[in-house]
Amino acid sequence: MKTYGKIIRKIRCAISIRNRWAREALAELLSTFIMMLFGLGSCAQVVLGKHEFGQYLSINLSFGFGVTMGIHVAGGVSGAHMNSAVSLTNCVLGNLPWRKLPVYVLAQMLGSFLAAVVVYCLYSEALYNYCGGIFTVTGPNETASIFATYPQPYLSIGGGFLDQVIGTGALLLCLLAIGDRKNSPALKGTEAVIVGLLVTVIGMSMGMNSGYAINPARDLGPRIFTAIAGWGIEVFRAGHYWSWVPIVAPCVGGLTGAFLYKLLVGLHHQPEEEETKEEEVTKMDEMEKGNPETFSEFM
Amino acid sequence: MKTYGKIIRKIRCAISIRNRWAREALAELLSTFIMMLFGLGSCAQVVLGKHEFGQYLSINLSFGFGVTMGIHVAGGVSGAHMNSAVSLTNCVLGNLPWRKLPVYVLAQMLGSFLAAVVVYCLYSEALYNYCGGIFTVTGPNETASIFATYPQPYLSIGGGFLDQVIGTGALLLCLLAIGDRKNSPALKGTEAVIVGLLVTVIGMSMGMNSGYAINPARDLGPRIFTAIAGWGIEVFRAGHYWSWVPIVAPCVGGLTGAFLYKLLVGLHHQPEEEETKEEEVTKMDEMEKGNPETFSEFM
Amino acid sequence: MKTYGKIIRKIRCAISIRNRWAREALAELLSTFIMMLFGLGSCAQVVLGKHEFGQYLSINLSFGFGVTMGIHVAGGVSGAHMNSAVSLTNCVLGNLPWRKLPVYVLAQMLGSFLAAVVVYCLYSEALYNYCGGIFTVTGPNETASIFATYPQPYLSIGGGFLDQVIGTGALLLCLLAIGDRKNSPALKGTEAVIVGLLVTVIGMSMGMNSGYAINPARDLGPRIFTAIAGWGIEVFRAGHYWSWVPIVAPCVGGLTGAFLYKLLVGLHHQPEEEETKEEEVTKMDEMEKGNPETFSEFM
Amino acid sequence: MKTYGKIIRKIRCAISIRNRWAREALAELLSTFIMMLFGLGSCAQVVLGKHEFGQYLSINLSFGFGVTMGIHVAGGVSGAHMNSAVSLTNCVLGNLPWRKLPVYVLAQMLGSFLAAVVVYCLYSEALYNYCGGIFTVTGPNETASIFATYPQPYLSIGGGFLDQVIGTGALLLCLLAIGDRKNSPALKGTEAVIVGLLVTVIGMSMGMNSGYAINPARDLGPRIFTAIAGWGIEVFRAGHYWSWVPIVAPCVGGLTGAFLYKLLVGLHHQPEEEETKEEEVTKMDEMEKGNPETFSEFM
Repeated sequence: MKTYGKIIRKIRCAISIRNRWAREALAELLSTFIMMLFGLGSCAQVVLGKHEFGQYLSINLSFGFGVTMGIHVAGGVSGAHMNSAVSLTNCVLGNLPWRKLPVYVLAQMLGSFLAAVVVYCLYSEALYNYCGGIFTVTGPNETASIFATYPQPYLSIGGGFLDQVIGTGALLLCLLAIGDRKNSPALKGTEAVIVGLLVTVIGMSMGMNSGYAINPARDLGPRIFTAIAGWGIEVFRAGHYWSWVPIVAPCVGGLTGAFLYKLLVGLHHQPEEEETKEEEVTKMDEMEKGNPETFSEFM
Repeated sequence: MKTYGKIIRKIRCAISIRNRWAREALAELLSTFIMMLFGLGSCAQVVLGKHEFGQYLSINLSFGFGVTMGIHVAGGVSGAHMNSAVSLTNCVLGNLPWRKLPVYVLAQMLGSFLAAVVVYCLYSEALYNYCGGIFTVTGPNETASIFATYPQPYLSIGGGFLDQVIGTGALLLCLLAIGDRKNSPALKGTEAVIVGLLVTVIGMSMGMNSGYAINPARDLGPRIFTAIAGWGIEVFRAGHYWSWVPIVAPCVGGLTGAFLYKLLVGLHHQPEEEETKEEEVTKMDEMEKGNPETFSEFM
Repeated sequence: MKTYGKIIRKIRCAISIRNRWAREALAELLSTFIMMLFGLGSCAQVVLGKHEFGQYLSINLSFGFGVTMGIHVAGGVSGAHMNSAVSLTNCVLGNLPWRKLPVYVLAQMLGSFLAAVVVYCLYSEALYNYCGGIFTVTGPNETASIFATYPQPYLSIGGGFLDQVIGTGALLLCLLAIGDRKNSPALKGTEAVIVGLLVTVIGMSMGMNSGYAINPARDLGPRIFTAIAGWGIEVFRAGHYWSWVPIVAPCVGGLTGAFLYKLLVGLHHQPEEEETKEEEVTKMDEMEKGNPETFSEFM
Repeated sequence: MKTYGKIIRKIRCAISIRNRWAREALAELLSTFIMMLFGLGSCAQVVLGKHEFGQYLSINLSFGFGVTMGIHVAGGVSGAHMNSAVSLTNCVLGNLPWRKLPVYVLAQMLGSFLAAVVVYCLYSEALYNYCGGIFTVTGPNETASIFATYPQPYLSIGGGFLDQVIGTGALLLCLLAIGDRKNSPALKGTEAVIVGLLVTVIGMSMGMNSGYAINPARDLGPRIFTAIAGWGIEVFRAGHYWSWVPIVAPCVGGLTGAFLYKLLVGLHHQPEEEETKEEEVTKMDEMEKGNPETFSEFM
């Protein structure tokens, strides 16, 4: 039996990945996958079920608690960003080395893409039943909006850009607050739920204009999938070439929101509250030093 | 690299605000802004989306979890009142020096006003699409109620006053209970969620008559914005000059609720439960002494 | 200033109630009042608002989080039973001296009655607007079910009795589990939310037959109020004299549920898990000894 | 009085079950019973109440928070699997000895069956009122889907198998993450709520195709009940003999999900995070050694 145990241990050692980058990439991939699996799944269920199996609130809650689950899946390994705008902001804030950014973004895109594949498989028969196999991006029977976001007919590109800036701004502003040890942070171990509630409330209050992508990875991965899977190149052109907005605007918005929080609250914590500083130093040390140009001093 | 770090630190020192009043005002402003951004956003989404993107429950949840986010944004700095009736009650209870009250109220009003501005920008195209650019305060296509509260046609001013007194009374009564270390308080770090649930439940049970303002800042800031932005002076006159009720009645209600909790429960905690007293003393010391006339003895 | 402080302290001493029974009665009254204020308020809002300001789920959530708030209001003083069946079961389990039972029950009934009074005042104009001042117990425009519970037309008295036994049984069974330190209890300080979720889930799954009173105080107090306030003696006679069922059946159900939990799980915890026993002893000592005949040994 | 106490203690000793297997079986039975009581109850309420007493979201929340309550009922005794696919996966992971598996599965099936019995009793009058005593498995007035799951007309057996694999895979993947002490686990004492949210989100996003059984015990127990209670053998034949799918597919899915989490994240935690290893050893020791062939090394 002891020999058996040894063999297992050896196999485990052989499989186990020690490279930090690879571990973080896999974690980021899996957490984004899980978040999008629940989120896109609920979109499919509400649309294809003609509101009999859920309503707009179900979509809000699914993306919200999907984020909660994603944080449990990867929070301790990669930080569970699941959102390229969050990763970018973390780079600017000095919490993530810049050279890791492409790895994170790619892992998120891939996770998001794979979630779209799985949701397509999960609901392929329902999809065929709903639209008779004709996948359209616009019109009453359109199904592209199950996967990627599209603007309402009344929305201009400028209005949509602003919509995404405000939504992602609110996201990052609150994310910084929820984790700010010198302010009134969420209890350790409950952050996943609180961030889930944050994403839910963004969906309930800023979802109408364009479906609150507020995340390049959430939008681009599934959009590429739909382009391949039968909806065609129209998915990039619809809504006056809407598809670039949920990629660029969230990055602008995320930085704006983080900047606002730092400027109005985060920068002004005073030393009397310094006892928490030490743990930050520890956190800092844990992080690979490799990004001397960061603005981590502003943190 | 070291020089770089030094420069950043210097800039940070230069920007950082040491004045406590200013820091508290900014925190109060930002938390009220965030709370109202989510709350008003959901009102806009439900009204302009004709109940397809949410229902009354979404509004209740958005104001509730908006409060949760606001507490994370400012709880450790200003206490995150986000409500002038809460600030007033805290003054009477001796938790906030009276001379800070105007600062808090102004910051809250400004935060609330700015949230109305941002929600207007966010949904301006949806708004034009909904009402064709004609902003009305009454009638089937009215949009003023997205921003401020208006009474139902059946409601008298007296009935509305009572409505606001009861709603704000329930709010303050429960707020005191949730934070009462000698009773059964919420776990530290989870108060933000519990207070969010409290605001949600008030909306689900006391929202019909007049839209549960229960907060002068929540109502007056956006009302002033609508008066400026095109709805006109009618916003103050509608509902038999309703607009003064959500300013005065919540103050009366807040004090009543706090008084009730103290009288029936809070005042009668006995010394055997005294071990928690010390931490209160510490809290007291932290607070600036500057309000000797308060009723803090009753706390 | 010192003199001022002294005077305040004296007044406080004069007002403060030292008698434990009185303190517990007041706490029980206020917590039941708050729970019922939110619960009945949501019933009124859903019925009078014709489902525009909430749905059945809103009622479930309001009673649930109303219980959450009630626990924060009185949990540290009286245990916040807010339910005569819970108090009775606690007497049988030896957690509450029998001679305190009438005090608890009376306080709960009074709190529940007062909540009905306040909800009536809050929604009196909406009520008149809804039914033109004609208060009926049956028929399409009935409003009695806002306050007390009535069975569905198809329900027999026997079926309704069983309904109440099962509902209250589930309540007590889970309440014991949530607080069982030798099992998998809710985290200290979060019990209020978990119990709120419990009441919510009971309402979502066992609410249809007769409105899930599962609590004599929740039902009788408001029923007496409606009898006085204009609905007349019919409130006791409707549904084949339904009114006695939500008083008797919850007591039977509560004991059954508690017995089931003890018999199947609670009784069999083994000594290896004994390290938590000491804190229970302390709890025991704190309790007034006065009920030697209890089955506390079974606890 | 002392004699009285002694007698009680003796009775307690006589009743108390010391056998670990029996205690775990009873706990597993009761927790599955409670979970299914709330879940099936909400299905009955939504179907029989014709969506007036709840909507699809109520069913999602009821199964979710039913799981929460089940975890409180048995978490500290048997682990509160309440799901045969979870027990199987735990056997493979080395967390449960294989020879206990049949005991767990039987207890779960029995608990699930008894819950169906109680829900039938609870809603029998409503059921007769709804369908006039004619219990059908298909057609517009069918009521079999209150108890067991049935596929949508468009769903093939292959598609349904995949649906169950994906759903249970997501369940187990997240369950492992939520409890992974080396990652970002749920705060101790709040796992029950987080797992409840997980089940809720699965229902909101993967419930349409076939009612998200994702659990052999959840489906088979009530199905056997309906076969006996009047729906007949058709319950096994409907949907092209659907009934075997929710038994086999969840087992495949559970293992797949657990495997995926281990492969992508769980296996790669590095020794620097080793301080938590000791507590796992303790947990290991507590477990009865009796399954040397397990893959516990992979844990």
